[in-house]
Amino acid sequence: MRLPLDQTHDPERRSWVESANDPAGDFPIQNLPFGVFRLEEHEQPRIGVAIGDRILDVRRCAERKVLPGVLSQAIQALAAPTLNDFMALGRPQWSAARLAIGNLLDVRFVNDCKPHVTLIPMKDAQMLLPATIGDYTDFYASIHHATNVGSMFRPDQPLMPNYKHLPVGYHGRASSIVVSGTPVIRPMGQINPDDAVPIFGPTRLLDYELEVGLLVGPGNGLGQRIPVAQAAEHVFGLVLVNDWSARDVQKWEYQPLGPFNAKNFATTTSPWVVTLEALAPFWVPSMARSVDDPPLLDYLKPPEPLGLDLTLEVSLSSEGMRKQGMAPMTVSRGSFADMFWTLDQLLAHHTSTGCNLRPGDLLASGTVSGPTEDSRGCLLERTWRGTRPFALTDGTERRFLQDGDEVTLTGWASLGGRPRIGLGRCTGIIQPAR
Amino acid sequence: MRLPLDQTHDPERRSWVESANDPAGDFPIQNLPFGVFRLEEHEQPRIGVAIGDRILDVRRCAERKVLPGVLSQAIQALAAPTLNDFMALGRPQWSAARLAIGNLLDVRFVNDCKPHVTLIPMKDAQMLLPATIGDYTDFYASIHHATNVGSMFRPDQPLMPNYKHLPVGYHGRASSIVVSGTPVIRPMGQINPDDAVPIFGPTRLLDYELEVGLLVGPGNGLGQRIPVAQAAEHVFGLVLVNDWSARDVQKWEYQPLGPFNAKNFATTTSPWVVTLEALAPFWVPSMARSVDDPPLLDYLKPPEPLGLDLTLEVSLSSEGMRKQGMAPMTVSRGSFADMFWTLDQLLAHHTSTGCNLRPGDLLASGTVSGPTEDSRGCLLERTWRGTRPFALTDGTERRFLQDGDEVTLTGWASLGGRPRIGLGRCTGIIQPAR
Repeated sequence: MRLPLDQTHDPERRSWVESANDPAGDFPIQNLPFGVFRLEEHEQPRIGVAIGDRILDVRRCAERKVLPGVLSQAIQALAAPTLNDFMALGRPQWSAARLAIGNLLDVRFVNDCKPHVTLIPMKDAQMLLPATIGDYTDFYASIHHATNVGSMFRPDQPLMPNYKHLPVGYHGRASSIVVSGTPVIRPMGQINPDDAVPIFGPTRLLDYELEVGLLVGPGNGLGQRIPVAQAAEHVFGLVLVNDWSARDVQKWEYQPLGPFNAKNFATTTSPWVVTLEALAPFWVPSMARSVDDPPLLDYLKPPEPLGLDLTLEVSLSSEGMRKQGMAPMTVSRGSFADMFWTLDQLLAHHTSTGCNLRPGDLLASGTVSGPTEDSRGCLLERTWRGTRPFALTDGTERRFLQDGDEVTLTGWASLGGRPRIGLGRCTGIIQPAR
Repeated sequence: MRLPLDQTHDPERRSWVESANDPAGDFPIQNLPFGVFRLEEHEQPRIGVAIGDRILDVRRCAERKVLPGVLSQAIQALAAPTLNDFMALGRPQWSAARLAIGNLLDVRFVNDCKPHVTLIPMKDAQMLLPATIGDYTDFYASIHHATNVGSMFRPDQPLMPNYKHLPVGYHGRASSIVVSGTPVIRPMGQINPDDAVPIFGPTRLLDYELEVGLLVGPGNGLGQRIPVAQAAEHVFGLVLVNDWSARDVQKWEYQPLGPFNAKNFATTTSPWVVTLEALAPFWVPSMARSVDDPPLLDYLKPPEPLGLDLTLEVSLSSEGMRKQGMAPMTVSRGSFADMFWTLDQLLAHHTSTGCNLRPGDLLASGTVSGPTEDSRGCLLERTWRGTRPFALTDGTERRFLQDGDEVTLTGWASLGGRPRIGLGRCTGIIQPAR
């Protein structure tokens, strides 16, 4: 998935948008993630690009014809209310847009282009889902997560015999995908707390799952496969995903056909899609597979085994903490480079039967957990099924999520002194069951 | 789900479209199923209603204002290229359209309305998917199917402890749903035939699954539940569904998160959506639950336990049979009244967590199998995992599907001497792996 570096990755490059040059910020001129926003509730949504604490109004750039080198087809797609049409165009047109937008925002181009450019403060904009997501697939690509969870649900056989041979995945619910900031209502559900008589009531074991999601660019026709070596051409970019889970519902319902109601009440994504191009400098050799692991079948062998060096963090604040002005507490921190299955393998496996992907489809990694306790990406693992609670800074204890809890996922790459490429924030507050 | 009977159900009613009065036909004037068709490849699709061997061009009826009593909102929805907008309107508007269309086609109205009505021979039309299907859910509602399959995959525990407490389901793939008549390419996949070293190759155990699908009418908001007693208000109508399955892929991949690639290469639906109104006379007391079964939780208790008396049939023809002019062979015949979980329970359970359904969403029943060998709705059961092959009329043997095989599902209700209400045909021919 590693793309070549070019002038858009130059670490010395700076923007005339001052906030973009903050080394602690997510959105320097080397990032330029795409999103969809609006300013008023009933307004037509438009495409924007994040730069510092501002949003570049891309639709207006398209209308004012200040994107040299971008073909008319792409100009039209950038004026649409979702990113789907633009995603369908493929990398040559994405690259041309990235180059033109970067030039607009470059400190060296200030005099020429500033008057044509509309910047909107992020705080004034309402972010929406970046694309219409036709289908959502969730994988299980962290071997640490699979081993931890497996050992709780199936102590005799934590890791299934298939695990190292294929990236296990399942189809998720697309209708209930919401954008960061949308409150999450504690779901009701059928649970069987004492393994005796099931009851219907609010979930008692509400959890988050820290995941990375891939948004599909050009799709494949029904009956066609995407070769693992060409997978990158089908990836527009990445977002953060919180695959909220009701563990008690899951435990009771999941056999034999997998998770269903335990997951379909809400899935949150971050609003900014960080392109694969922006992430080009951050690929590292993957150490996930060892020589003792079974050999990969050809259709899953990437040209080079690479992981993405992306730091991922979960933070949590209770309602009490927020009332007292306390900062959110970091609950875990891991790396996406630790994944056993890589993004190109997920795409190749998903389409190996000829299953068709469409622009804007979401493929999520599954919970990203590392080898250490503080890198476990969900509470089920972090508190070991609630047996090892931890204390928040307001003195309360957490085994699973409480009403009023706010969960925030963040992620960023910052290898070798390059400007930090951030994925932004993926957040949600738990509301009481209804 | 039983709706009241009215004049549109009058068994004596006849149409001036002569073929609609054929007692062996699927589409009498008491049926009036909705579909989407076009005559030329690049034409805008339009909504039609099946009557005998003709299609009523509903868009033209809407344009010519020959649908008295139908509100302008519904007229507009009926001129759209899919049924989604019409599905969203709800039963009062569906009923008004059914009444008006029935009157147009009634033998007593011939002189007034015939000149305003365009009928197209079915053989000249290309049928399309009736709706844009946002999400597809597949259930496991036949206890005979669950018990049979369970005993093969898990002989120690065929039926999971949850089975009689909740309708088990999983999310399917929406992108690969195709309309009847679309060829199905034998999928490649990762399989492990000897339980030793997995390989990648064409599935050897390709199967069909005979199912009934429900298309959602008005949806529910995220966080809202559909009460079991109100489920019927959210159901537009029913179709036949063939959930094609690669059993060897399924066996190797399905643990712990359920079927994925084994199912996502193709799912076929019939083109005509038979409304719940047309099916009103065919509800019968459900005998599926016995007094020994565990009591239902309130959210799953229907006001009256009713099953739909729908006969369902699978027929098969090989390429050789078709070349020799032989008729397809009936492989199984069952009844939808045998289902353990009913359609209203599927809707109530699916939304019990607040999962939002959208107009046009597809909820399929899972394989419909009855208690007898000849009522088993997939080859896995019919040939007991291939151990009990059967002979086709061309002398070849079937354990699983061969290239060139054509599978056709049909379904109809015909209780009490009423005109037969047919679901039409759901068919597909297997093409060799690519």
